[in-house]
Amino acid sequence: MAAASPPPPPTPAPTPAVTLPNSHTLFARIRLATSSDVPHIHKLIHQMAVFERLTHLFSATESSLSSTLFPTTSPSPPFHSTTVLLLEISPTPFPTTTHSLFPPITKSFNFDLPIADPDADLFRSSPNNAVVAGFVLFFPNYSTFLAKPGFYIEDLFVRECYRRKGFGKMLLSAVAAQAAKMGYGRVEWVVLDWNVNAIKFYEEMGAQILQEWRICRLTGEALQAYALN
Amino acid sequence: MAAASPPPPPTPAPTPAVTLPNSHTLFARIRLATSSDVPHIHKLIHQMAVFERLTHLFSATESSLSSTLFPTTSPSPPFHSTTVLLLEISPTPFPTTTHSLFPPITKSFNFDLPIADPDADLFRSSPNNAVVAGFVLFFPNYSTFLAKPGFYIEDLFVRECYRRKGFGKMLLSAVAAQAAKMGYGRVEWVVLDWNVNAIKFYEEMGAQILQEWRICRLTGEALQAYALN
Repeated sequence: MAAASPPPPPTPAPTPAVTLPNSHTLFARIRLATSSDVPHIHKLIHQMAVFERLTHLFSATESSLSSTLFPTTSPSPPFHSTTVLLLEISPTPFPTTTHSLFPPITKSFNFDLPIADPDADLFRSSPNNAVVAGFVLFFPNYSTFLAKPGFYIEDLFVRECYRRKGFGKMLLSAVAAQAAKMGYGRVEWVVLDWNVNAIKFYEEMGAQILQEWRICRLTGEALQAYALN
Repeated sequence: MAAASPPPPPTPAPTPAVTLPNSHTLFARIRLATSSDVPHIHKLIHQMAVFERLTHLFSATESSLSSTLFPTTSPSPPFHSTTVLLLEISPTPFPTTTHSLFPPITKSFNFDLPIADPDADLFRSSPNNAVVAGFVLFFPNYSTFLAKPGFYIEDLFVRECYRRKGFGKMLLSAVAAQAAKMGYGRVEWVVLDWNVNAIKFYEEMGAQILQEWRICRLTGEALQAYALN
């Protein structure tokens, strides 16, 4: 029986210092979005609405996103109002850039198979023949019990062909790291109660799921009625 | 039979132009809080933590509230960051005041019985022998589908002896009216799923209760771990 055989001599497995011949390396970068990214952001939000089957609630245009996310009058510094971080993917390393407010986060990934991106041309982003693959949009919130600000993540989205590869974790980690560095108390977001895969993923990221709270929303005509008060 | 008698001549019922002898008139005012209100805000938040049995999560101090709610460096105008509106109650009318950013909202209430306020001395507020009776704290949020900001109400609190008299409605209406006037898309907040009285009240105010969404929260050591990223 194999169990009775002496073990083979302990030869350390070679550490793959270089990419294996049959693996595919991709380079990911997370950076602050700017107003010139609005066409990509608009397409990403629309894809999210399609995924969530909520296109009937989607009324954003490039123009309305631009004026509200990147106002030209009295803009706030990043992280102090609604902020967008973009995820870009490239077959070649990104050039080193500096940004005083948010140094881009880069990471390389090795995959056994190449990723076929049917929408690559729609989401092309310079430099490096890169594509925009996802985004996270968040804004400051506030906890009175902690007397500290936090971040609320309104949207976290990765395009379909890039899912289940660690990019969502990279985006969420970027927001959490920024909150921790700023001394903020919490990062919060919401999940649909039937989305068990997402809930498992968030719990593995260290999040608690608050089961007892329900969101109340006043919108549309019911909200407009208060304008007369 | 009385039904066969001719009706009495139509004398109009006298309109009660003055307070009825056995009623008690109180004057309510909602105004923007300032840094000098922090001691009252701190006591209100603590009372809320006691009511919610969450004092173990309460770590705010007057100093931490003051520096985060009323920062002396780069303060935002009201409504563009975390904003507090205070509810004051007085036995006499409030003087007319003007405020370019938020004209105070005043309203008079008639009650059959006087309101005994055991904490009146703790919550005294000038002028008019007024007391602080509650508050609402909120901040801007953002909907990507609408491409519009909204307000998220973090706290709405009325001290116990002033509850079920219309003051909570007055505070919530003030936030909704401000959102509608600013062209914002939504006002949102959360409620505990077992708090059926609150849910009924919010539905009567025009709110939808979103049953499927759950809040995810990353906080404490689980959040701090990301600082090393």
